[in-house]
Amino acid sequence: MTGKGVFITFEGCEGAGKTTVLERVFNSLDADGYKVMKTREPGGIDIAEKIRSLILDPEHTMMEHRTEALLYAAARRQHLVEKVIPALEEGYIVLCDRFIDSSLAYQGAARGIGIEEVLSINEFAIGTHFPDATIYLDIAPDKGLSRIREDKKREFNRLDQEAVDFHKEVHHAYHRLLERFPDRIHRIEAETSLENVIHETKSHVCRF
Amino acid sequence: MTGKGVFITFEGCEGAGKTTVLERVFNSLDADGYKVMKTREPGGIDIAEKIRSLILDPEHTMMEHRTEALLYAAARRQHLVEKVIPALEEGYIVLCDRFIDSSLAYQGAARGIGIEEVLSINEFAIGTHFPDATIYLDIAPDKGLSRIREDKKREFNRLDQEAVDFHKEVHHAYHRLLERFPDRIHRIEAETSLENVIHETKSHVCRF
Repeated sequence: MTGKGVFITFEGCEGAGKTTVLERVFNSLDADGYKVMKTREPGGIDIAEKIRSLILDPEHTMMEHRTEALLYAAARRQHLVEKVIPALEEGYIVLCDRFIDSSLAYQGAARGIGIEEVLSINEFAIGTHFPDATIYLDIAPDKGLSRIREDKKREFNRLDQEAVDFHKEVHHAYHRLLERFPDRIHRIEAETSLENVIHETKSHVCRF
Repeated sequence: MTGKGVFITFEGCEGAGKTTVLERVFNSLDADGYKVMKTREPGGIDIAEKIRSLILDPEHTMMEHRTEALLYAAARRQHLVEKVIPALEEGYIVLCDRFIDSSLAYQGAARGIGIEEVLSINEFAIGTHFPDATIYLDIAPDKGLSRIREDKKREFNRLDQEAVDFHKEVHHAYHRLLERFPDRIHRIEAETSLENVIHETKSHVCRF
């Protein structure tokens, strides 16, 4: 824990509804009078934005997996130092859309680099600033991908182009992370009604 | 060692003459009929070039030290995989201007992150591909900086703006690395005549 604030991250496969749920929980906490901030990497941080656009550029089909993992760790570091830590020190509840577990699941497991190896570069990046709690929205990978394809407002990026098999590996990896970090990561069933998911998520967040 | 080739890196403080010496040794080996390639990070590799321009952009005064170290490791990985390893597999002598030891000296020691920590992310980046030999051109840091300032053809970048004290720490760090990797790193006195430095460097390289 950093300063007086609380650091909560949201994780899940593509299409799990992280962004929608985070937005609704943010609005609800805000309405209740909490000092709350929402963010996602790169979060408007200039250097981190530039790193992210490099990672997601569809031209870069040649990007090697370890290069990608190092770039995610670099963007994470800068966003953490410039935006998250200062907010925590001011006492904010910080809600962050994806963080270290995304790298462990996507790069570590699904890309085949190895969870331990990706954890080591991310520990270099975040130091002691692990989330106080992580909300994992659980959805079957094929259902998540269907949601994305139906949502035409959403920009189609390089990661979305990956095969369904890749997303199945990500899903499996999140379940391994749930077993590994049972105190930090809280699983929420994301295939029920949106209202239900929001209610459950908010009750988890409010324990802090 | 990778494939049939030999991987030689050149290290030293700013102004030690690495680029000139590397160029001359390259020309000499080439004239002798060796299959030789010269490169430096990012080495014309699209992704690595973009990462490097991000690091050296003078606008980025806010870039945090660990972000910078992760970006160097990312550019290193991509350059290694796309350019160095394929050349080694084809049997080339690869001469590379700066590599892992620059990160250990600049980010690890002089920036104060710690050599061990920076080594860990670079081991993630390079795996087993350590150089077969490293030529360290040794020059007193104030003399190196004087050389740079006199050379008006050379572009002035963000690293050059650092204080002389910073360069003294880099110099000290290289000497710690010499003690740590005595079999791999070869020190060459760079304050003597250029012809002498080239002769000594080439005789080291030719042992492989």
